[in-house]
This record gives sequence, structure tokens and C-alpha cells, in this order.
Amino acid sequence: MSPLSRTSSTAPRGLARRNLAIRSLAPTRCFSIAKNNDTRKERVVILGSGWAGYGFARTLDPAKYERVIISPRSYFVFTPLLASTSVGTLEFRSILEPVRRLPGKIGFYQGWADDIDFNRKTIRVETNAAEEAASKTVVPAPFPPPSETSGLEKDLTAPPKQPKGDIIDIPYDKLVIACGAYSQTFGIEGVREHAHFLRDIGDARRIRLRVLSLFEQCSYPRGSDHLSDADKRQLLHFAIVGGGPTGIEFAAELHDLIRDDLAPMYPELMPLVSITVYDVAPKVLPMFDQALAKYAMDTFARQNIHVKTEHHLERLRLADGEFGRRHGALKIKIHERGDDEVGAGLVVWSTGLMANPLMAKLAAKDLALPGANPPTTSPPKTRRLLRDPRTGGIMTDAYLRARTTPTTSSDQPPSPPDPNPTKPDASSSSSSSSSILEDVYVIGDCAVLSNHPTLPKTAQVAAQQASHLARQLNKNGAEGVGAREFKFRNWGTLTYLGSWKAIHQSQADELRGWVAWVVWRGAYLTKSMSWRNKMLVPVYWVVSWLFGRGISRF
Amino acid sequence: MSPLSRTSSTAPRGLARRNLAIRSLAPTRCFSIAKNNDTRKERVVILGSGWAGYGFARTLDPAKYERVIISPRSYFVFTPLLASTSVGTLEFRSILEPVRRLPGKIGFYQGWADDIDFNRKTIRVETNAAEEAASKTVVPAPFPPPSETSGLEKDLTAPPKQPKGDIIDIPYDKLVIACGAYSQTFGIEGVREHAHFLRDIGDARRIRLRVLSLFEQCSYPRGSDHLSDADKRQLLHFAIVGGGPTGIEFAAELHDLIRDDLAPMYPELMPLVSITVYDVAPKVLPMFDQALAKYAMDTFARQNIHVKTEHHLERLRLADGEFGRRHGALKIKIHERGDDEVGAGLVVWSTGLMANPLMAKLAAKDLALPGANPPTTSPPKTRRLLRDPRTGGIMTDAYLRARTTPTTSSDQPPSPPDPNPTKPDASSSSSSSSSILEDVYVIGDCAVLSNHPTLPKTAQVAAQQASHLARQLNKNGAEGVGAREFKFRNWGTLTYLGSWKAIHQSQADELRGWVAWVVWRGAYLTKSMSWRNKMLVPVYWVVSWLFGRGISRF
Repeated sequence: MSPLSRTSSTAPRGLARRNLAIRSLAPTRCFSIAKNNDTRKERVVILGSGWAGYGFARTLDPAKYERVIISPRSYFVFTPLLASTSVGTLEFRSILEPVRRLPGKIGFYQGWADDIDFNRKTIRVETNAAEEAASKTVVPAPFPPPSETSGLEKDLTAPPKQPKGDIIDIPYDKLVIACGAYSQTFGIEGVREHAHFLRDIGDARRIRLRVLSLFEQCSYPRGSDHLSDADKRQLLHFAIVGGGPTGIEFAAELHDLIRDDLAPMYPELMPLVSITVYDVAPKVLPMFDQALAKYAMDTFARQNIHVKTEHHLERLRLADGEFGRRHGALKIKIHERGDDEVGAGLVVWSTGLMANPLMAKLAAKDLALPGANPPTTSPPKTRRLLRDPRTGGIMTDAYLRARTTPTTSSDQPPSPPDPNPTKPDASSSSSSSSSILEDVYVIGDCAVLSNHPTLPKTAQVAAQQASHLARQLNKNGAEGVGAREFKFRNWGTLTYLGSWKAIHQSQADELRGWVAWVVWRGAYLTKSMSWRNKMLVPVYWVVSWLFGRGISRF
Repeated sequence: MSPLSRTSSTAPRGLARRNLAIRSLAPTRCFSIAKNNDTRKERVVILGSGWAGYGFARTLDPAKYERVIISPRSYFVFTPLLASTSVGTLEFRSILEPVRRLPGKIGFYQGWADDIDFNRKTIRVETNAAEEAASKTVVPAPFPPPSETSGLEKDLTAPPKQPKGDIIDIPYDKLVIACGAYSQTFGIEGVREHAHFLRDIGDARRIRLRVLSLFEQCSYPRGSDHLSDADKRQLLHFAIVGGGPTGIEFAAELHDLIRDDLAPMYPELMPLVSITVYDVAPKVLPMFDQALAKYAMDTFARQNIHVKTEHHLERLRLADGEFGRRHGALKIKIHERGDDEVGAGLVVWSTGLMANPLMAKLAAKDLALPGANPPTTSPPKTRRLLRDPRTGGIMTDAYLRARTTPTTSSDQPPSPPDPNPTKPDASSSSSSSSSILEDVYVIGDCAVLSNHPTLPKTAQVAAQQASHLARQLNKNGAEGVGAREFKFRNWGTLTYLGSWKAIHQSQADELRGWVAWVVWRGAYLTKSMSWRNKMLVPVYWVVSWLFGRGISRF
């Protein structure tokens, strides 16, 4: 038998050329921190890979600056679509953007910024390249609230924990702090251990596994340890705490998953399923006006999603016995219901942000005054980063530059911030009354603008701050930054409600229903996404609609 | 400001109708085991959701039979593309088919078949709907090889382990055993604990995380615990044990990932990367003829993939100190290299199958003779399932029916199998010399055909057996099965070699190079895949080619 052989040592030349052409758009990116051959460019180090950090790195011009990102997470998460991935409408990777794929040369080190020496302009990083590092929301162990600064200082004097990873020092010329915020449990017992969060992609994956597993657990016939209908009603009760857009959208997506994909597979379980959204406030979706919020509530009512406002969770615990141990059933104690605990199979905690503890640590450091040879006064004068006592974030001026305040004495807390700071000089090197820390900028959730301290902590704000800062640096470096204040433009809010309906509110417009849903879907094909994901996301929308969502557990 | 409101209570009617139309293709599937209202249909219970089990369930007519699948895994894995998902060319879910999405009414219980009472026709199932249950390859604790039956019987008398899940009993009318095989480590020390397998989707996910994490770990600058180039060379050495199609394809896919996606990101690490395939045999890819195998080796050589035949692994262990503990570095002891251990960051074990231990357990059970009122002889005559002493699988006749052999006495092992069994009567109810177990069929890796005991344990064989059995049952029930022998048709073998090249060999044809690659890609858009995945797989091929593979770790 003579073989029909086609020997070809490479792919056809045309395709090979195209392959090389595309690959050439991705030039070499990595470089060693020790060998910075390009001495003309300043190094800008960015802490964080979220809306602020990634957005800033994306806009900063690699021809003018050397960009280095330090983050425990090597990718950006497109959070508005996170709820969709948590039920399988979209796949996880279609909303992730690897940092190393940003165009142009970029450095990246996976790890946590443990400490910053502002005097020597060096960042101490604890590396962690473990396989699933940082994909899940980390809630720090019980921590005194930021307003009790005395407690905080006690905490900072505790012996430092042993680092698990290698420690490396990264020098910078300019630093952009974009560390974001942590989830806040308000110290409520059991939330940290038993609730699911929804802020990162690992969270979405765990929620997805849990939801599907609960239906599977309830689908067995009577056995030696059977679940009664009352048990199943508890296991199939999905409780969401927090009536903001995250909680509302998750409830909506969960409803669609159950209606479209799980009802045909588990029809006998449908009468036992319920979804409840709890919030302490009198109304959910506070950023929407009354009419739209009411429309949202009516839509939820028609879909059988219960909304219980003015309900305070007091405790979360595992149910007793095998029910809790084997099935993970939970019991929620709600203040308004007295001693009657509510059973649930899944509790999603989508409320509460608290400052990254690193902010407190940095704000407690004594920094040298700028440009001064240390005088022979005793004790030497120092200054500290200014922290917002209410939220714990670092305060900045209107140009996103970190503000400082003179340290009165090491035992006294820093003086309260000047609510109306005078516009700083364009030159930031004025010595005696400088109130900013040179070359250090803060953006995103961990920043508090002095002239607008109540800006919400949203993706929109973070993205706009990042864009603004990068553009100003591109134009004219530090002087460029001082030339133009940051102004937030509110493009409005969109929230999906389930059943192909959404609400949208902006200064120009209000939309509801199916049209808002189209806008909702369209708005997310934005420049924050790579072309890879701009292709994948619509494909998944179509595939999920035609053939159902992905429902396998692994 | 008057809102532009569009109120719409449902999606546009046309789309809603289409939605309902598609949904109506998925009628209610679930039913309670206690309430089998349809008493005219026989219940066929299938153990397993792999090529044999899923393929059988897919072809069996739900109008004629009630289908119930019992499996620890709720989906089918399209294994030929598993290596592609382990490096990110395809996404995991694009090769999964949920069992509950098979058309027509189907029952499914997630769990392990713990025992079968053939006399009362009941299966004892240990349920397990835990979130990630059964997505990873399980290698049983050290176990005597199947040929040492005496050791096996000792093992079976050990006290049973405590079940972790609920126990339920599932009755059947006909039973199809398609439990597959387990991975075999040949008792080599350290493989079970430290090697990665590549047989299930959880395996692919773990391999993917490990590969990407290794590159990240090697990308840091010098720190307090820095890795030397020699260390990195070990961590970036990827060792694959087993030169069959699985191991070869994984090596090929890994090569493509490194060349296409990791080289632009970690250019300084490229000189330190190496891939080696080890095999004990004198040549790899034994199912291909000499010329094609040589072509494969030349292709690998050009891609710098080392192939070391006639190499025997003796031991695998973690490297000493922090290198092993923190970075997971491994040391491989190879017989041919004496005391010199080879360092590696990842060892993929893609060789060796052993029988599912359930087969041994079932074959040790005494079964009643068919149709007989128990005579007053003492001891009563019984029979046992016939096991193949060489591989441990259950022996079947040429019609895929489970064979039995009279039990001589409870202390003696069963008599050796008749290598040339006479063709059984079409009626399976003959009493005295019946050598088959009525209504019990065995297909796939756990089956050994008496007339063709050396059939390879491949997906093709399992799929053809499943099809054949289901079609015969559809035609005419048990008599249909006895009317036509199973004949395996070898459609040939395809193996991907990397760099857009493949080899294909069948009785009609031999292909190599780019043409074989096209055939390789085309062949996988088969009827074993749902339309959902037939759409997703080509989309991912295009997206991975244009924009790179998914490389985020979570």
C-alpha cells in the first residue's frame, strides 16, 4: 500500500506569515528588574490589576514610561459580567484580561505589596505564583473598624506573620497605588466562614459549583438519609445579602438559570426553589430614582424573587448534624424575625467594602520631608500620608496625588484633614508646606478625593480616574498631572433584572425593559475588553440562549 | 425630566416563541425512582458516563426503554480533545456533554455503584453530589495486580470503608456495565502522590494551572530565596511518561502553547525550557507503522521535544527543602540513569490502565443459577461472573453479554475461561449450561470479548460497542442482541504532533503533515458532540489562533 503522503515542514506559507504578523504585535515583554537598560524612561509601578490599576497601565504610554504592575492577580476581571459567569451564561475566561497581554512592553510581578519605603522609593513584595493565588475574595481576620485608629495601631504592633513567598524589592520612579478595597463583613459571625462573595472570578466559580451541586443533591430518591421536602426547601433557598446592583444582578441571573436550564431537568424541585434579597436599607438600588426602583421591584415580584428590605442579618451558621455537615445547609438569624432562623443552601454576600489594610500600614509610616537635609532638630520633623478616618482610604488632592500631613508627635494621631485645601503649586518641590507626596498617586477604591470625598466606589469612577491620570502623565509628566483636575462624569447606571429586562438611568435618559436590556448588553462590549473577549462574549450569549448554559461541575 | 420609558413585560413575541420552541425540545426528564408510571417499558440502567456508557444511552431509544445512568460524573468528556484543554487551546466546557441534556427522558443519579445484587436485580449506589466530585482521576491505594487473585481475595475481605454519601438502591430490568478502567501506576513509588494524570477534565485543569504557575514562579528577579538558572531549568522541564497518543499529543500541545503564547511573555526563560517523553517500550506510537512513527519522531526532534524510549521510571519524589516544598519541584529516578535523578516541574503520567476494582468485587459474588428453584443439594450450585485474569475485566461473549462460569467450590478460583466458547442459543433462558448472565451486558474498557480478547482499550472500541448494543436492543430486545455479533471496524488512528502537523493511519490511507492536521481537526466535529460544542470548538480554535490561548489561573 503506497502511502498518500504529503510532507510539509511548516504550515502553508501564507498562514505562517499571518501567524508571524499577528505574533509580532506582541513584542517581548519581560525584562529583569536588575537590568533596566533604558535609562531615559521613568519607571511607573502600579499596585493592583483592577479597574484602576489595569485601566491606568493600559492608557499609560509605554514609549514614554516603563510600566511595571505588581498584583496578586495576573489578570483583570470585567466585573459587570461577573454575575453572568457565576451562573454559566458566560464562561469565566471570557471576562478575564491577562495583564501580560497588554500591548507594548510591560513588566509584571505576581505578589502582594507588603510595605513601601517612600524615602528610598522601593516596594517590598511578597511573591506568590501559586496556582490559584488571589482568585478568591479574601476577608481579613476580624479587624477593628477603620474609625478606631487606636485599635489599628495596636494591631500594627503585633509581630509580623511569616511570609509564605519569596521577598523581593522593586524600585520605582513614580508609584500608582490602586490596591482596591476588601469585602467587609461588619464583624457578623459566620459570614466570613460560610458566605460566598462575588468580587473575583474564583468567587464566581465557587458559586456556580454550589448552585448546581445543590440541585443535584436534592434530586435523589428516598434513601437511608433522605431529604424531606422541607429540607429541600431550605437547601434550594438562595439568599443574597445586599440590594445594590451586584446583588440584584446575581438574583436576576440566578433566576434565569433556574427558569431556562434547571427547570427542564429538575421539574419536581421547582415548587421548592426560592430566591430572597436582603438589605438593611429601606430600599434597594438606591442609585436609581423611585420609578425605576419600583419597576425593578415589580419585575422581581413577577419572577418570584423576594426582596426584604430593612432586614438585618445577625448571624450565619451551619445547620446542625448531617444536614449542615454533609449538605452544607446554613441557618441565618435575622433580627426582624426574632429567634426563627431562616434556612438556606447558599448565602451570597454582596455588600460592604472596607479599606485594604495596607493603607493603614502605609499611613502610619513616618516620611521624610521633601528635599531637606535632616536638620539637627530633635525629634526630626516628619510627615505621614493622610488617611480618611471614615473609610480608611488614602486622601488625594484634586489631581489624584497622595496628600500628606505633618506628624505632630508619634503619639498623637495626625491632624484632621483640611477640607478645603488650597490649590498646590504646579511645582511639587516646595519644601516647607508641601501637602503632597511627590511621585505617588492613588486611584480607585482605595483613594478618597479631598474635594469630592463622597464619590462612590464604583468601576466607573476608578476607570475614569485611571484614564485621567495616565493621559496627564503622557502629556507632560508630573507637571501635566498638576495642570488639570480630575472631574467625574457620571455615564449612568445599568442593572439587569432578569427575564430580558433591565433598567438604565443617566443624566440624559431613563430606560427600562427590553430596550434597556439591549443597551445593557451593548454597553459591555466596550474598550475595556480585548478583541478576543469581544468575540467570545456575544458567542456565549447566543450559545447559551440557543443551547443552554454550561452546567457541568468540575 | 420625562423618562423615555419603554414598558415591555416580556421579550418580543417572536423571540419568546423561538425560545419556547427550543426549550420544548428538552422535555421533562427527571422522575422519581419510586414512581415508575410507565410499566410497559423496561428499565435499562447504565453504569458509567464515558464513551461506552454515554454512547449507549445516546443511541438507546427512549420510546422503547426507560434509561437511567448512574455515574460519579454528570457529564461525558470528549477525550481526544482533552490535551487541547489542558493547555488552553480549547476551553474545558467545550468538550463536556452533560448527561441530563441527552434528548428524550433520562434519569441520572450521581454516585458510585458500590455493589450489585444480580439475583434481585438491584444496584447499591453511594451518592455523591459534592461540587467537584469525580472530575479528577482517582488512583486507588496500592493494590495487588489483577493477576494475583489470591491477593485480591485477601483485599476483599478487609472491612468495608465507611460510606461518605447516602446509600440508595436502584432496581433494573437490564443492566449495562460501562464503568471503564482506572489509571495504573504499577506501584511505582511517588507517582500517585506527585504525578498529574490526564484522563478527566479536572486533571486537565490542574495541569493547566501547574504549567502556567511554573512560568510565573520563574519570572521573578533575584530575591531572598532566588532561583538559579539551574533551578529554573528543572522547574521548566516537563516530563511526560507514556509514548502513546495521549502522551504524544500532550507534548505536542504543550510545545505549541510555549511557542505561541509563553515565548512572547517570558523570552528570557525559553532557553531553560525542555519537554521529554519517556517510555519503557523500544518505540513510541506503536499503533502506527514504521514510516509514520519515524516522521513523528523527526517532527518532535525539530521542535526540540526529546523522546527517550526504553527508559524505566523507578521513583518520583519531591525535591528536598524549599525547592520541593514551595515550588513543587520533583525528582525522577530513572533506571537507565543510575543514581542521577532528573529534575522536573511537572510529570504527566499517561500510561497504564487497570481494571475498576468493582469488577473484582462483582466477580467474587455467587449468583443463583437461572430459572432453577434451588435444589436440595448441599452446597447449592452457583455461578460467578467470568473475569479475565490478565486484565481484570469482565468477560463477555461475542454479543457483549456478561459470561458466567459455574462456581466449583468457594475456595477454588473459577475455572479458566473457554477460549472458544460455542455460540450461545438465541434464547438465553436455557438452564443447565447457560454461560451468560441474563440481562447483563458489559461494554468499554471494563469488558473483554472472549472471541477477541486483545481488542485495545480505546474510545473507538467503546463507542462502537455501545452503538452496536443499543441498536440491537432497539431492534428486538434481548433476542436482538443475540442475533448479531459485535464486529470492530478500525477507522484508524490520528495523533497530533504539534506545529500544525499530524499523522493519520487507517486501512485505507496514511496521511502526514498539514493535510493530516486538517483531517485531525475535522474528524473531531463528530456526532459525539452536541451542536453547542460543535459551535464552540471551532470558535476557540480561531480565537486561540488569532488572539492567543487563555492563560489566566483561577
